[in-house]
Amino acid sequence: MKELEERIRRDGQVLAGGILKVDSFVNHQVDAALMDNCGREFARRFAHLGATKVLTAEISGIAPALTTALHLGIPVVYARKTKPITMPDQVYLTLAPSHTKGRMVELIISPEYLSHGERVLIIDDFLASGATILGLVRLAEAAGAQVIGIGTLIEKTFEGGRAALEPLGLPVESLTAIVSMDQDRITFAG
Amino acid sequence: MKELEERIRRDGQVLAGGILKVDSFVNHQVDAALMDNCGREFARRFAHLGATKVLTAEISGIAPALTTALHLGIPVVYARKTKPITMPDQVYLTLAPSHTKGRMVELIISPEYLSHGERVLIIDDFLASGATILGLVRLAEAAGAQVIGIGTLIEKTFEGGRAALEPLGLPVESLTAIVSMDQDRITFAG
Repeated sequence: MKELEERIRRDGQVLAGGILKVDSFVNHQVDAALMDNCGREFARRFAHLGATKVLTAEISGIAPALTTALHLGIPVVYARKTKPITMPDQVYLTLAPSHTKGRMVELIISPEYLSHGERVLIIDDFLASGATILGLVRLAEAAGAQVIGIGTLIEKTFEGGRAALEPLGLPVESLTAIVSMDQDRITFAG
Repeated sequence: MKELEERIRRDGQVLAGGILKVDSFVNHQVDAALMDNCGREFARRFAHLGATKVLTAEISGIAPALTTALHLGIPVVYARKTKPITMPDQVYLTLAPSHTKGRMVELIISPEYLSHGERVLIIDDFLASGATILGLVRLAEAAGAQVIGIGTLIEKTFEGGRAALEPLGLPVESLTAIVSMDQDRITFAG
């Protein structure tokens, strides 16, 4: 998606440790209009698959997942990383390594909002190693729901996420794909 | 706002300890269309005040703040509760008590995204004691920005938040106001 690629080129910052900082438009400050356009694009790409729910992980997946859900006309569920007191005792819980936190985090979903027979579209900000997304897939499967597709704003093709997701046999759509990056230059696929 | 009030009446659950659970449409599962309507309504109510940025706190403020920002055509910044590695060493940080966590939490904003001269509209899910919103006000003031209004989805009038915000002399708009609630009944103002 050209608009997102140009924004990353202009405002993305490559930090030490292979971190791409997009805090000025995705992760801390959010460009609402850009996120709306990304949601519209995800909705267009996945419209034919009949999703009944968008699934993401807090925190930075919420914005693109919400706008995607809006354009598909379905609800979004975000997996929590800590269990709030409003959640029942029995939950779906899995562990996934966090790239930016350097440790394992919990991903938790209440059985109230994900159930057997649902068709789940997973949306997240980054596809890096794929570990968070695989965690979301496990939660959906535990709930008896069927994952029908995966969409991410930014794929880092050199971190292996697409290969990790390949055995699922699902459509994986990234709005932008970065093939290499260093502090001077971000190179996109295509 | 009638649509939100009816949804709370239908799907809200009053838990022990004065907690109103709205996890099926605001806090864990999000009704994207409803949040969009709430954002449109906030935008309508605050349009004349010339906000340049929406400010909220992760996690549950993000959805209504994003849709409000979308309808106002401005960005949203969400205060983080833990400092990500992408954030600079020097930040604006304040402490606020969390109603649902039963302890103090940090609210952190990077100086990169909130600065002198900005006109800030604060949006959050609940107005209860007002403590989180007062924390956001302190962060905005520390950045030299001017808060121009405060909007929340659900005000619990019996928890004193409006009185706590009154000295600020700002417009405070709640889309719904609950005057009393117990496990059998939620009573709205008006």
